[in-house]
Amino acid sequence: MTKRAVALNMADLAERAGVSIATVSRALSGAPGVSEETRRKIRLLADDLSYAVSPDAARLARGSSGRVAVVTPDVSHWFYAAMLDGIVTGLRGTDLDVLLYEVKQERERRRFFSELPARRQVDALILVALPISDDERRRLDLMGVTVVMAGGTLGDHPHVRIDDVEAGRQATAQLVRAGHTRIAMINSTGTWSLEYAAPGARLRGFTGVLEEAGLEVRPELVVHRHWGSHGGVEGMSELLSLPEPPTGVVAFSDEVAFGALRTLRRAGVAVPYTMSVVGIDDHHLADMFDLTTVRQPVTQQGKVAGQLVHQILQKGDIRSPHVTLPTQVVARGTIGPPPGVRT
Amino acid sequence: MTKRAVALNMADLAERAGVSIATVSRALSGAPGVSEETRRKIRLLADDLSYAVSPDAARLARGSSGRVAVVTPDVSHWFYAAMLDGIVTGLRGTDLDVLLYEVKQERERRRFFSELPARRQVDALILVALPISDDERRRLDLMGVTVVMAGGTLGDHPHVRIDDVEAGRQATAQLVRAGHTRIAMINSTGTWSLEYAAPGARLRGFTGVLEEAGLEVRPELVVHRHWGSHGGVEGMSELLSLPEPPTGVVAFSDEVAFGALRTLRRAGVAVPYTMSVVGIDDHHLADMFDLTTVRQPVTQQGKVAGQLVHQILQKGDIRSPHVTLPTQVVARGTIGPPPGVRT
Repeated sequence: MTKRAVALNMADLAERAGVSIATVSRALSGAPGVSEETRRKIRLLADDLSYAVSPDAARLARGSSGRVAVVTPDVSHWFYAAMLDGIVTGLRGTDLDVLLYEVKQERERRRFFSELPARRQVDALILVALPISDDERRRLDLMGVTVVMAGGTLGDHPHVRIDDVEAGRQATAQLVRAGHTRIAMINSTGTWSLEYAAPGARLRGFTGVLEEAGLEVRPELVVHRHWGSHGGVEGMSELLSLPEPPTGVVAFSDEVAFGALRTLRRAGVAVPYTMSVVGIDDHHLADMFDLTTVRQPVTQQGKVAGQLVHQILQKGDIRSPHVTLPTQVVARGTIGPPPGVRT
Repeated sequence: MTKRAVALNMADLAERAGVSIATVSRALSGAPGVSEETRRKIRLLADDLSYAVSPDAARLARGSSGRVAVVTPDVSHWFYAAMLDGIVTGLRGTDLDVLLYEVKQERERRRFFSELPARRQVDALILVALPISDDERRRLDLMGVTVVMAGGTLGDHPHVRIDDVEAGRQATAQLVRAGHTRIAMINSTGTWSLEYAAPGARLRGFTGVLEEAGLEVRPELVVHRHWGSHGGVEGMSELLSLPEPPTGVVAFSDEVAFGALRTLRRAGVAVPYTMSVVGIDDHHLADMFDLTTVRQPVTQQGKVAGQLVHQILQKGDIRSPHVTLPTQVVARGTIGPPPGVRT
């Protein structure tokens, strides 16, 4: 990656345009002494090559803006906020500052990536669990900066994440062990056309454990809703309306579980006596709901992402660019035996 | 503020040092042709004057780095994350990028402000509900950039906030209106030596409403805990251990209320039949707890702060730099009449 950054310096641009470096400099800075036609030609070429037309361009080419861009879907959401907190913590004590870019909608994401080369002056980008298109990935590669994915994978780029299949397995196994045989999952739907990997992976963990236990995976017991708490409210309502509701539910995330618990409270269904619920995350408020869950170290993932960036910028390369952090069960009060079964 | 920024340019430094601008430039950039003694003298003076010794210094003096620094205590916390989300939203569509600085501890805050002039290349700072010392405020003034406070006040600097006395009044009035006469408050303690204004203001709202209703403010019914959910857990435990517990509780924040509700659930105290609880915030999970609360528009405060910065940088000044946004009661399920009173 460092090589690419060097490749896109002003000398490179001059060679490709067949002019002197001084001419390129004058053309891009708007200084006099260069014809309008040459200026236009150089600008077009610079644009094509994703050359950063900015006062920081030279520093960027040397990889020393001193800034890291963090690109995240929605910073008001607990998960992304905890990631961001971790990233800032991981970069603390380094000389690197954090530029924050929030891309809530697909439109914003597309604009961010299209403006990236012209506006952004950074040594590295950390993408927080953000699915991007193949074209956007190519733009990132052209830009020639270090790219790290936190909370997912992105081709061969360095990443830090959890094993979502394993998280789904751990959550489901808690219900199987407690004796449940009618187990449901409230899974997540993506909100973007590009696919997040977590819902599919956690579902594979869920079905894998059921099959290994000799339990049927009933299609009506797997419902899909938005990944927020209101998705849990709706998902649990749908499950309660079934002729034969489940006795245990795996929620895609703790927030989905919080919503499921509200539906159960309002419906007068006692937890865990009539219904057991398990989440995934260990949200910082999971304890307030007494929720049994599978903890993923979110802040730690962010911290590792920050440290990876720092190491790569310092050393040019690192030995282990792909980090998977472990998840673990946190037992609280929302799992019990199924109704009618004595412990 | 724009005047201050202009005042601290290189010419100003040259005049004060009694040397030429070229000498200042050479001294600060480390170029040859200037004696070590002169260099040291100019650097000391630049430090004293909080002159930004950086490649971006000239742009900074013109107020055109294109970057806004957001300084916030803890981005993993819902309140600060929602503020940050609002700020980014308020700056969307402008040419301004956000540099994020998290200062969780007093030590970090002090270091941030001491390094501020040397390292930070920004047009403006937004402080998010961050109490700072008089000395730090003077450093900010010297730095000569636009400073906006979000979620509080900072001298005459532009700010956006809520009226915390009114928020305390609105919360308490809900319990008085429902017929409660033994009303408690779980208030917040600051975690820093510098005082946050909100706890004192919300307490004044609480006592004001009780006095106007002819109710006694009993000292044992005002407890102080950390402002997170665990503070609510502890505060409610203390209140339940009193010889005569209250029948209604005002929580400093929704998170304190969440903790209070957990203590009540574990103690088997029915809400709202035996105990009523009201929060302040309208946290994005308040709905999942069925919590009656006083909504403060957090994201909106951040958005206004971002817009204030943009307007000030564009126009140099604005008409209404002090914005107070309204709070309002959101009735859900945690307030009822006191036990033994028929509705």
